[in-house]
Amino acid sequence: MADMVMLKELASRIRQDILLSSTRAGSGHPTSSLSAVELMAALLFGGFFRYDPREPKHPNNDRLIFSKGHASPLFYALWAAAGEVSEEELLTYRRFGSPLEGHPTTAFRFTEAATGSLGQGLSIGVGMALNGKRLDHLPYRTFVLLGDSEMTEGSQWEAIQLAAHYGLDNLVGIIDVNRLGQRGETMYGHDIGAYAKRVATFGWEAIPVEDGHDFEQVLSAYARATSVTGRPVMIVARTIKGKGVPMLEDKNGWHGIPLSREQSDQAMQALGAGAAAKRIIGRMEKPENLRPEQTAPSEPGSPAYDRGSTVATRDAYGKALKRLAPAYPNLVVLDAEVSNSTRAEYFKEAHPERFLEMYIAEQNMVGAATGLAARGKLPFVSTFAAFLMRACDQIRMARYSDANIKLCGSHAGVSIGEDGLSQMGLEDLAFFRAVPDCAVLYPSDAVSTERLVEEAARHVGMAYLRTTRGKTPVIYDSTERFPIGGSKTLRQSEQDRAALVAAGITLHEALAAADDLLKEGIRLRVIDLYSIKPIDSDTLARAAEETGIVVTVEDHYAQGGLGEAVMAVLSGKDCRVHALAVRKRPRSGKPEELLALEGIDRKGISETVRALLV
Amino acid sequence: MADMVMLKELASRIRQDILLSSTRAGSGHPTSSLSAVELMAALLFGGFFRYDPREPKHPNNDRLIFSKGHASPLFYALWAAAGEVSEEELLTYRRFGSPLEGHPTTAFRFTEAATGSLGQGLSIGVGMALNGKRLDHLPYRTFVLLGDSEMTEGSQWEAIQLAAHYGLDNLVGIIDVNRLGQRGETMYGHDIGAYAKRVATFGWEAIPVEDGHDFEQVLSAYARATSVTGRPVMIVARTIKGKGVPMLEDKNGWHGIPLSREQSDQAMQALGAGAAAKRIIGRMEKPENLRPEQTAPSEPGSPAYDRGSTVATRDAYGKALKRLAPAYPNLVVLDAEVSNSTRAEYFKEAHPERFLEMYIAEQNMVGAATGLAARGKLPFVSTFAAFLMRACDQIRMARYSDANIKLCGSHAGVSIGEDGLSQMGLEDLAFFRAVPDCAVLYPSDAVSTERLVEEAARHVGMAYLRTTRGKTPVIYDSTERFPIGGSKTLRQSEQDRAALVAAGITLHEALAAADDLLKEGIRLRVIDLYSIKPIDSDTLARAAEETGIVVTVEDHYAQGGLGEAVMAVLSGKDCRVHALAVRKRPRSGKPEELLALEGIDRKGISETVRALLV
Repeated sequence: MADMVMLKELASRIRQDILLSSTRAGSGHPTSSLSAVELMAALLFGGFFRYDPREPKHPNNDRLIFSKGHASPLFYALWAAAGEVSEEELLTYRRFGSPLEGHPTTAFRFTEAATGSLGQGLSIGVGMALNGKRLDHLPYRTFVLLGDSEMTEGSQWEAIQLAAHYGLDNLVGIIDVNRLGQRGETMYGHDIGAYAKRVATFGWEAIPVEDGHDFEQVLSAYARATSVTGRPVMIVARTIKGKGVPMLEDKNGWHGIPLSREQSDQAMQALGAGAAAKRIIGRMEKPENLRPEQTAPSEPGSPAYDRGSTVATRDAYGKALKRLAPAYPNLVVLDAEVSNSTRAEYFKEAHPERFLEMYIAEQNMVGAATGLAARGKLPFVSTFAAFLMRACDQIRMARYSDANIKLCGSHAGVSIGEDGLSQMGLEDLAFFRAVPDCAVLYPSDAVSTERLVEEAARHVGMAYLRTTRGKTPVIYDSTERFPIGGSKTLRQSEQDRAALVAAGITLHEALAAADDLLKEGIRLRVIDLYSIKPIDSDTLARAAEETGIVVTVEDHYAQGGLGEAVMAVLSGKDCRVHALAVRKRPRSGKPEELLALEGIDRKGISETVRALLV
Repeated sequence: MADMVMLKELASRIRQDILLSSTRAGSGHPTSSLSAVELMAALLFGGFFRYDPREPKHPNNDRLIFSKGHASPLFYALWAAAGEVSEEELLTYRRFGSPLEGHPTTAFRFTEAATGSLGQGLSIGVGMALNGKRLDHLPYRTFVLLGDSEMTEGSQWEAIQLAAHYGLDNLVGIIDVNRLGQRGETMYGHDIGAYAKRVATFGWEAIPVEDGHDFEQVLSAYARATSVTGRPVMIVARTIKGKGVPMLEDKNGWHGIPLSREQSDQAMQALGAGAAAKRIIGRMEKPENLRPEQTAPSEPGSPAYDRGSTVATRDAYGKALKRLAPAYPNLVVLDAEVSNSTRAEYFKEAHPERFLEMYIAEQNMVGAATGLAARGKLPFVSTFAAFLMRACDQIRMARYSDANIKLCGSHAGVSIGEDGLSQMGLEDLAFFRAVPDCAVLYPSDAVSTERLVEEAARHVGMAYLRTTRGKTPVIYDSTERFPIGGSKTLRQSEQDRAALVAAGITLHEALAAADDLLKEGIRLRVIDLYSIKPIDSDTLARAAEETGIVVTVEDHYAQGGLGEAVMAVLSGKDCRVHALAVRKRPRSGKPEELLALEGIDRKGISETVRALLV
């Protein structure tokens, strides 16, 4: 039985710390924090949360994710209540250099994943719960604090549906139904039944809590939540925004607005601050000291392809995953219902227990991958490059969680042909280049694909790999290596009059164009820029210097892709750079018709070079 | 009472056309088309669909959206059954140049919106239904054919929830529950109840159809669907993938695979093809000839700001919308629950009937805007720039629908300060630049914002406007004009030793740096590049030529934004381009601390220029 007196004292203390930090910062979301105080205090200090603060990375710690990341004053106050954050540190909230950022980031040691873009925490929780249940087989639970406003995000319902599908009874969501969103009432106001019945219909155990500030009700909800088996649990609690500070309670217009120093002092006094106040420490339960079984990695075999045979790079992607599986025991594969197209199915067939079908729900897939990565897994995530654009916000946030995830976008470019432009990835390079420190890799044949998947697996951090639908000739020996940041110069002479820089499907067109022009006595350098980011500046600079003319060729829009990456490197150099890219509206047609339409086929390239050499 | 014999004959004919077109094309999705034949034939030719094919843009036509765009063989076969597409045209399916593309595009005159990226059609339908119910007050209905696989997309549930919220009883969804997705069974297989109960819990009228190939059941479902009031309707029909061709029926492994010529001929014979077959024409009902009331536009007033006063550009955005409302009677505003931050609330307060609260569901917001634009509205769509990244796929597809929509991303860049990196739009320019023909506008003060909102409204096509959270000084007279594709040279002399190119918040830092360096006798040109796309190449080229050194400054990541746009224009020119941008991980802090961290404040700019001039 939890100590009610202690919990109530802790709640008052937590409320004071919420006011303290946000008022000192002069910004932040105290009202959104105050509504969830009892919900969180009961969880952490009411005997349910099993966590060793001396070892935040303990594999069997319960996990807590603040999906409503703007309630960060509460998040930090909870860890202060646990004795892990000092009052002095609380006062640095939102200051430059403080780990206590405006929304939780991994700069703070107890943050599981960066949040603040709403509607993402539950997906991350799904990933962590999938890990506990299906991969590490550990009994830890994952708790996710959700705002009522953010339940309108579709990604929540993707997570809800998948969690039910996989029967994740180690996942507990807590919706803080405080009625008020940023600019007014939410869609369902204080109707906790509206949430409960929706969630229940999706196969969750829904536990309504009439008064989310009544510790007895809240504790009883957690007791029930932690005894459910076979399905995930959602606690749906009616709460009061601004609870505990009468001038704020249930008032619209106070979202994201701190109290003044005077208002705060007054409210803190009312909450029991003063000379007599002592800082009591809440205790969490210890996790059982269980660790996942470790499989020893073995050396990966080598890819084996015959030069001159034709293999789709997407095919090589699937084969590489399968080949690397024993070398990376933590490697898992996620796909959004298109594994037969991305070829992730090769891995699935060989290692079904390490494959996660995520259905057509890309946002949740990426969010779950972030959760898996946070639990030490190495997720490879695939779908069509075009459909990865569905998850840009999740990818952005995954990067801010420093998630070690690898994304593969297949069916890049107009060269997919007849399916038409809805299926063509044509802006993926622009987006992924703008993700900080994300490696952007674009192989042209089976060997380079295999090697780049290997590089991506070895690389610590995010990597994006772009694959092609159609078959392309194998142009490299299977022993060739492709370090991230490198390039391959495939044609080179002292008489080179221009350099063609390409990757993926257009590399083959560039090679063909070089062959054609050679017959006319025009020698061209050809560079395979398989690593678009980081980029091989030296080789490009040398090519620019030695030839004076660089022609880039890419099956991607002209903005933000390979061409602009090269132009950025060569800016200020004494050379002309001409970028061939997708500039006309693509449509259905044969791959070769579409490459020709855009002038990125062998003929288009040859004509451009000839014109530039005039 | 519908003519059953006619309907059955039409169904056979439609099936034959599905096989005909896909087999001839050698690709496409016949099985996904065959499952929905009765569902669509009953709708169009069973007395429910009111449409004048001689006037596809008739404002009171019922609308039909194929959210499962891969069922395009069915879509075109339906219009062939209506006598609007010839057999000859059907045979051009998926050929280069044919309007009958692999997934429906607006190249085909009966396509309401381009589809093919799953989970988007219902949002578009929501926009069309909102238009009928709340804006044009016309009795047309919007029908959306949905696949069962795509119901896993969160965007569907965003649309479902919003449609219920607004009581859109003029919206009818039809889920074709054919059990099989691309790579196997869907999450709920043939359990139509699973869909029906979920949808019903969200407030829709759910109409289960046990056999979606039984015309009586299907007709009866439509009869009920078109009599419901007060809430949207979802018909949930159990169907057989590949229905009508025994070798395909309910078989896995046939997704997106056409029959061979021989198989197709055989199946067509079985379906009644041959000498005796006549091409019968299905008749649709005529729409009532109602037109929306037109309001005459009036001249917009002029913005009025005092030079030197400080106003946030997001503020000016809201004011501009309000000012332009009478000039653009079709202008409507959508916002994702942050109208008090984006300042769209100024419009809402003045014109509540033309404001649509879309709650925190950015994907559905953009999809609905596409639907509204298709019905002649001029939607302005706003949220934080960071959260617009949630809707990249919808934006991509909106462009392919040629949707005349305007997007505004507020809270751009590190200059938002304390809220931290989850809230900072830092990759939006890279993404929007890669959207074909999207105007990318980035105002620096209130006047330029007002004028650029006006330009965006006038511009036919997509436009993106980036606004800043903090206040910036008004630097332009209210009469100043800002044509798309232009720029403003704010400092210029014959002694300019370098040119600073900036926009938005950094323009003010650039001006300050120029002032500082002037005191040291160093004259700099300063260009306000408010139109990042299209870009003012001439002015930039002249600056490069005249100064030899161009320094770009942007509150955005270094990839794909203003800097690379300038470098692309100046590539090959005899000048150095140095790009200042966000290169370190941003965090919480004061705006000025963060601008300094990234070296994009006045001091960082000055130091860079000094170093370049050494």
